[in-house]
Amino acid sequence: MQFRLEHQDPGSKARSGTIQTAHGEIQTPIFMPVGTVASVKAVHQRELAEDIKAQIILGNTYHLYLRPGTDILNRAGGLHQFMNWQKPILTDSGGYQVYSLANNRKITEEGVAFKSHIDGSKHFFSPEKSMEIQRHIGADIIMAFDECPPYPSTYQYARESMDMTHRWLQRCGEWLKENDPLYGFGQSLFPIVQGSTYKDFRVKSAETIAEFGADGNAIGGLSVGEPAEEMYAMSEIVCDVLPHDKPRYLMGVGTPANILENIALGVDMFDCVMPTRNGRNGMIFTSEGIINIKNKKWEDDFGPLDPNGPTFVDSQYSKAYLRHLFAANEYLGRQIASVHNLGFYLWLTGEARKQIEAGTFASWKNIMVEKLQRRL
Amino acid sequence: MQFRLEHQDPGSKARSGTIQTAHGEIQTPIFMPVGTVASVKAVHQRELAEDIKAQIILGNTYHLYLRPGTDILNRAGGLHQFMNWQKPILTDSGGYQVYSLANNRKITEEGVAFKSHIDGSKHFFSPEKSMEIQRHIGADIIMAFDECPPYPSTYQYARESMDMTHRWLQRCGEWLKENDPLYGFGQSLFPIVQGSTYKDFRVKSAETIAEFGADGNAIGGLSVGEPAEEMYAMSEIVCDVLPHDKPRYLMGVGTPANILENIALGVDMFDCVMPTRNGRNGMIFTSEGIINIKNKKWEDDFGPLDPNGPTFVDSQYSKAYLRHLFAANEYLGRQIASVHNLGFYLWLTGEARKQIEAGTFASWKNIMVEKLQRRL
Ligand SMILES: [Zn+2]
Ligand SMILES: [Zn+2]
Repeated sequence: MQFRLEHQDPGSKARSGTIQTAHGEIQTPIFMPVGTVASVKAVHQRELAEDIKAQIILGNTYHLYLRPGTDILNRAGGLHQFMNWQKPILTDSGGYQVYSLANNRKITEEGVAFKSHIDGSKHFFSPEKSMEIQRHIGADIIMAFDECPPYPSTYQYARESMDMTHRWLQRCGEWLKENDPLYGFGQSLFPIVQGSTYKDFRVKSAETIAEFGADGNAIGGLSVGEPAEEMYAMSEIVCDVLPHDKPRYLMGVGTPANILENIALGVDMFDCVMPTRNGRNGMIFTSEGIINIKNKKWEDDFGPLDPNGPTFVDSQYSKAYLRHLFAANEYLGRQIASVHNLGFYLWLTGEARKQIEAGTFASWKNIMVEKLQRRL
Repeated sequence: MQFRLEHQDPGSKARSGTIQTAHGEIQTPIFMPVGTVASVKAVHQRELAEDIKAQIILGNTYHLYLRPGTDILNRAGGLHQFMNWQKPILTDSGGYQVYSLANNRKITEEGVAFKSHIDGSKHFFSPEKSMEIQRHIGADIIMAFDECPPYPSTYQYARESMDMTHRWLQRCGEWLKENDPLYGFGQSLFPIVQGSTYKDFRVKSAETIAEFGADGNAIGGLSVGEPAEEMYAMSEIVCDVLPHDKPRYLMGVGTPANILENIALGVDMFDCVMPTRNGRNGMIFTSEGIINIKNKKWEDDFGPLDPNGPTFVDSQYSKAYLRHLFAANEYLGRQIASVHNLGFYLWLTGEARKQIEAGTFASWKNIMVEKLQRRL
């Protein structure tokens, strides 16, 4: 994996660049749709590539490990082949879902014991196991196995958790040195900065992660319930420490406004279930603000779903039609909302890139952030 | 609406033809996907037109009347505009769903009182009311308001029901004479042959319906639980009486084998929820037989879903992948199965048409019917 830094915005810390992977290029800043269990929910791969114009998608190691399992993925030739997605993929480490979904989890220095949320079966994830699973899945970018402390965490818990995450990182790195990739292309490990909302820990963690010398670096443990201002403060501190010439990935963020604010702080990569999950619940993100399509006010709005929207659903379907589909609980409503919202998120990061290239990002961002948060 | 009869199969009563409507041509024999409540479940309109190659879709008057309602449909400019489907549409009369879904229904000579299955609200459908609703929906082909007697029905019940259906047909015709179309194009009323499984009633009903002189004619009250042989017997008797130069529509039929057998008897048009409903349950129809994709045997079949299938899903997704999506209860599984099955049904009626044009339908049909019923 190579990263080429291309432009710096004069009015903020925003930057644009290009990541080169074995499955093609990723132009940053970029939003990565979440393909939880080998599928971006309610969206065809063809729509992802051609309409939404996703350049990279995310897979969840916890979910893929449980279903279809590493044996099937391996025999398929990896996740790219299994789901027929030939562009880049990033997988998380599995840790986050273990903490948020699994039952009876027990965290020790060795790793995490847990029970499957599906059938209650017992499993154990360690740094080594996470690397092994991610080797079998075969994503282009894989994530270090970390602990994501809850918000709020005590100062002591945050420190102990961070220190363990740093020790786990070394174990991830060692396992990868001893075990080759399976599908004929390299996998880049991204380590993860933790430290909760404590500035000194965030600095220390960012320094430790920077020292590790990875192809790219991630910021974890944010967007877990803390106020947006705290998230931005932590993101800024960390970006200022992380190496300039490596991509920075802020995990699990966020709203359209969150994304633009973090781009302004120097973040390059984002993922979030919000465009699909909230979409399936009727929330439509647009460049003019947020629409709750279930609202009766859209019942007779026969104009296009989003006149500025980039995908076919924006022009081919009306607000009144989409509102009807939600009222009647039709599958197609969730499909349309998912394609629209992902198309919008990709448009947003693509537009941010253009503004960075033009040197106009900072002023554009301020106007957009205000509009993006309006309720229409 | 015009119908041009084009070819007659030398070895059966199968025929091919072209129906001309204000929204374009329909090449028969044809299968019509069911778009219950202004949406073919889990399928985008773009996929219907470009991938499945649907030439006409069906809307359900009962569902559309309840949601979004005739007022919204009317203000949208009719169902074509509301759902952005610019090819032909056919609507049923609403009767069938009233009998099968609604509560507290009471049938009298005047019409049917019932309560909505959604909110229990009280409604009344009559021949006149069904025509008025169908005028507002604005389909190219609209159906007479009939009673569909249950299977089995007594001889007396079947006769009384049939006679009432014939009287209701006159009322439909009179209402339409006095009330013009709303959207600048004509709507063709198809009357419906009833008579349960009694041959003498079927002949009498077909004669009555033929005499009405409509642009096309329908056969109702079949595929309601009777053995397939009885369905074919009734269909043959009716086709032999109905005019040769008008399209014949067999309502609610059926399996791929049912469709080919009925084409052989002279039926031109079909609709059924089976490809979508059974698809959403994991049943995949192919030219080599039926796949239950939930079966563990497909878990590691990484070959294409259907190597002979005409749509993008057939080559872009594997059986193992689709099996996984069903196991993980992912939306995309239902989407893929729906596109595949509808694409297959449209391929099947299109292929039947080619065989009729080549004069080889009868022998092809016999081979196909055997294959279509296999369990793979
Ligand atoms: Zn998120
Ligand atoms: Zn049916």
